[in-house]
Amino acid sequence: MRRLFEDELNELHTRFSEMGMMVNEAIYKSVKAFVNHDKALAREVISEDQKINKREVDLEKRSFEMIALQQPVTTDLRVIVTVMKASSDLERMGDHAVSIAKSTIRVKGETRVPEIEKVIADMAAAVKEMVDQVLDAYVREDADRAREIAEEDHGINTFSKEIYQRCIQIMQEEPETIVGAMDYMLVSSYLERIGDYVTNICEWILYLRTGKLLELNSNAREDDF
Amino acid sequence: MRRLFEDELNELHTRFSEMGMMVNEAIYKSVKAFVNHDKALAREVISEDQKINKREVDLEKRSFEMIALQQPVTTDLRVIVTVMKASSDLERMGDHAVSIAKSTIRVKGETRVPEIEKVIADMAAAVKEMVDQVLDAYVREDADRAREIAEEDHGINTFSKEIYQRCIQIMQEEPETIVGAMDYMLVSSYLERIGDYVTNICEWILYLRTGKLLELNSNAREDDF
Repeated sequence: MRRLFEDELNELHTRFSEMGMMVNEAIYKSVKAFVNHDKALAREVISEDQKINKREVDLEKRSFEMIALQQPVTTDLRVIVTVMKASSDLERMGDHAVSIAKSTIRVKGETRVPEIEKVIADMAAAVKEMVDQVLDAYVREDADRAREIAEEDHGINTFSKEIYQRCIQIMQEEPETIVGAMDYMLVSSYLERIGDYVTNICEWILYLRTGKLLELNSNAREDDF
Repeated sequence: MRRLFEDELNELHTRFSEMGMMVNEAIYKSVKAFVNHDKALAREVISEDQKINKREVDLEKRSFEMIALQQPVTTDLRVIVTVMKASSDLERMGDHAVSIAKSTIRVKGETRVPEIEKVIADMAAAVKEMVDQVLDAYVREDADRAREIAEEDHGINTFSKEIYQRCIQIMQEEPETIVGAMDYMLVSSYLERIGDYVTNICEWILYLRTGKLLELNSNAREDDF
């Protein structure tokens, strides 16, 4: 019985990590598509989101059955609860990749602003790095690393503010950039939200190790977006 | 033992519904603050968000303890899992109310556009109506109603598109509205996201009744935001 349960628990971990990699790929592709104006790649992100959604449902079902049939307590239960909760965060990160992909498809040859696209690409690289790291920290159950990763979210918010300022400026100076700059703003807000979800997963890693539910980044500061 | 468990389950329901009402009030106040340019009310929304976050942690702890100590199966477990998952949706709806409040504080006497503010107010009223209804459907465990409520999300997306079009137009015609219109776009995107979370809760109500995890609104359509 215990042996079987261990196997199921490992399987759950593996499938969660795989979901993380699917989401990471979706984010990477969606930004690549946006920056390269690649609508075919954007469509790929949208159609592949179904796989991510299915995986979330699969993880929910497995978690539920493991709780119902094996009646785990303490640490084991914590592992399962973590997967149940954090898989929602991953799924929503995937949804934001889809939103970025939709922005790419919406753009119809409007005037682009390479300087802002450069900042978006840098922001996306920083977000992708956070996602890579949080998946690694999850596998290692590294609570210290999780705290550090959550700190990096402040850097993501700095990118947001920079993109906002630049968009306002270019829209005022060159009205033909308005439609494109609105999309820059939206894409930046999706990336920022992905960073928030990474922070949520960091909180779950801490919970996994300590059993304590903590909020790592408060959104009570008025000057943040 | 069973008696105690029933009491705890009822308490869990009540506390979840209360959280829903707290979130609903936050959304209502944040939009009221935005439309009336009321920074004091916006600050109230931001500071009260802590209560919502605390309530989520409280619900998570209670759910976890109930699973660990009472080892519920089938229907009872489903109720607890629903609260665990849907409380995250509520918490994020609260976060979006905070984002709307932050937009209100950021605005520094820029040129406002009353026609667009009117559409935002209408959109907010429609979102608030959805939130009211989903909380009611949750209490009644009304799966049919949940399906209907999820359908209403399409109407919310229609508001989004209208606001987007109007913002683009006014920015191009009157560049002094650019800063304000960017905020309109952001507020509209937060409201739309709140509608998505309502749809998630609808899915959880269906799960509560049927044990099936279904996706009510696919985000695979390219023309949506």
